[in-house]
Amino acid sequence: MNKEYSAAVADDVLKINSRLLACPELCVKGREPELRVIEAENYALSVGGKRIRPVLAIEFYRLFSESGSVPDWVYDAAIALEMTHTFSLIHDDMPEMDDDELRRGMPATHVKYGADVGLLAGDGLAIAAYEVLSRLALEGKIPAETAVKLIHILSSGAGNRGMIAGQMLDLWSEKNHGGVDEAFLRKMSNRKTGCLLKASCLFGAVMANAGDEGISRAESYAEKVGLAFQIVDDVLDVTSSEETLGKPVLSDRERGKPTFADILGLEGAMAEAKRLSELAAKELEEYPRSGLLREFALSLAERKK
Amino acid sequence: MNKEYSAAVADDVLKINSRLLACPELCVKGREPELRVIEAENYALSVGGKRIRPVLAIEFYRLFSESGSVPDWVYDAAIALEMTHTFSLIHDDMPEMDDDELRRGMPATHVKYGADVGLLAGDGLAIAAYEVLSRLALEGKIPAETAVKLIHILSSGAGNRGMIAGQMLDLWSEKNHGGVDEAFLRKMSNRKTGCLLKASCLFGAVMANAGDEGISRAESYAEKVGLAFQIVDDVLDVTSSEETLGKPVLSDRERGKPTFADILGLEGAMAEAKRLSELAAKELEEYPRSGLLREFALSLAERKK
Repeated sequence: MNKEYSAAVADDVLKINSRLLACPELCVKGREPELRVIEAENYALSVGGKRIRPVLAIEFYRLFSESGSVPDWVYDAAIALEMTHTFSLIHDDMPEMDDDELRRGMPATHVKYGADVGLLAGDGLAIAAYEVLSRLALEGKIPAETAVKLIHILSSGAGNRGMIAGQMLDLWSEKNHGGVDEAFLRKMSNRKTGCLLKASCLFGAVMANAGDEGISRAESYAEKVGLAFQIVDDVLDVTSSEETLGKPVLSDRERGKPTFADILGLEGAMAEAKRLSELAAKELEEYPRSGLLREFALSLAERKK
Repeated sequence: MNKEYSAAVADDVLKINSRLLACPELCVKGREPELRVIEAENYALSVGGKRIRPVLAIEFYRLFSESGSVPDWVYDAAIALEMTHTFSLIHDDMPEMDDDELRRGMPATHVKYGADVGLLAGDGLAIAAYEVLSRLALEGKIPAETAVKLIHILSSGAGNRGMIAGQMLDLWSEKNHGGVDEAFLRKMSNRKTGCLLKASCLFGAVMANAGDEGISRAESYAEKVGLAFQIVDDVLDVTSSEETLGKPVLSDRERGKPTFADILGLEGAMAEAKRLSELAAKELEEYPRSGLLREFALSLAERKK
């Protein structure tokens, strides 16, 4: 992420982190043994992370809202996206999946807390997202109709035909290299990364009551950004260092996983990421408050970690 | 489960199974590799199972509804409970948890599909429950306010302070026998089993717009039934056979887990289960359509598997 962008979203990120800390579903008070799983969830949430998904939700809310100011409940709803993302990271790092012992330079959750607690912590965060969103509706902070839309956006983006499908394709690709071509990689990347990024953008648009045109712009932006993001991820796995990335590099290659870097070549992949991120930025250029979102899209092709 | 009860709920169970088959979130059409995870979810759902949780929801709906007849959307919402229960079984059987290779006499999901796909199948089912409930609201089959209540009941019953807490207590108890007394077992059983059974009863009551008195009866019934259920489970682990139970017996003892059977003795445990199931049945005796639910409670002390 480049410096201008990082500085601009720093306030959002601070607020997201403070709302995560205030979230009753994640509160650990007392010494009862069952709280250990929530402690593990907080650990997984706390080890860095750029909070890209809630930031996208918040910035899309700002874009489409009348005043451009963002009330607390928007942050509270947006943290459900970070919970979902973090649950997927915990499970993805586990021995039966990618078997990664490091995440953002720190021990992965299952390494620090054991695989049993890690499994439960992923489950707990996956469920907590829906607890948060439904609670906000019961507290009268979000209309029930809006909450139901958010819950459907999140669960379909994360579920069997979204992120879970992407994880399944990822597993399949490790054992079936011959079946992996560019179209497959685009589909896998869309499901693995794109679907939850799209859900994030839609979160903001729906909370701000954006019309059909706005929703469709948000979707189109998200699709391009999601793909650019994954392409750069593949390239960084080859060109970056463990120190910069906070996790082992060349991990895809070690597993024999074909990536965009293999299929398009490093230069071709970066050119495609640049093309997509420019198209994404263009989607929003008519909107007065879109500077940060356009900057985010453009920064993808320059990110170093 | 005794024969009268089984016969009486057979129609409910048939309908639940047919609604599970019709559920678009679980539909497998085509040969795309990502469908394998949904196939694993269907497998886990299909290997037997008494469908106790959706049956409780349906019977509580029948109890509190005006006509006593149950529309399709009630079945469709109730299957979210079975999805949640089945997700917990898949993850509970995994090597890092109970490491059980058999479930209801069949290979556990992670044995049949591999631990990686098993992990994802549990995740997929956990999320699909919320996809189903929010979709029913978007389709206009459930009012958004009701859907939000159901989603909160399910997520809080299954989440960090419900079923997940129970699983965490279970892990803790394996390593801390000294800290396990009757009060601990009651709490663990409440979280592990009771919370989702309570959610099931509340599902029916909320869908039928039961008043405060009805909700409170449903909760009280569920708490007693949940505890009786777990006590009998502990006893069957000692007294039953692998053939009858469909899973290995003496598994708690092998893991050195203290159970109600140890702490109350076999006879004491069964007496307590009987007392609780009679109290549960008594909660509902004023309601004309409560026969099946009372029968269910009473049958718990007699169940053989």
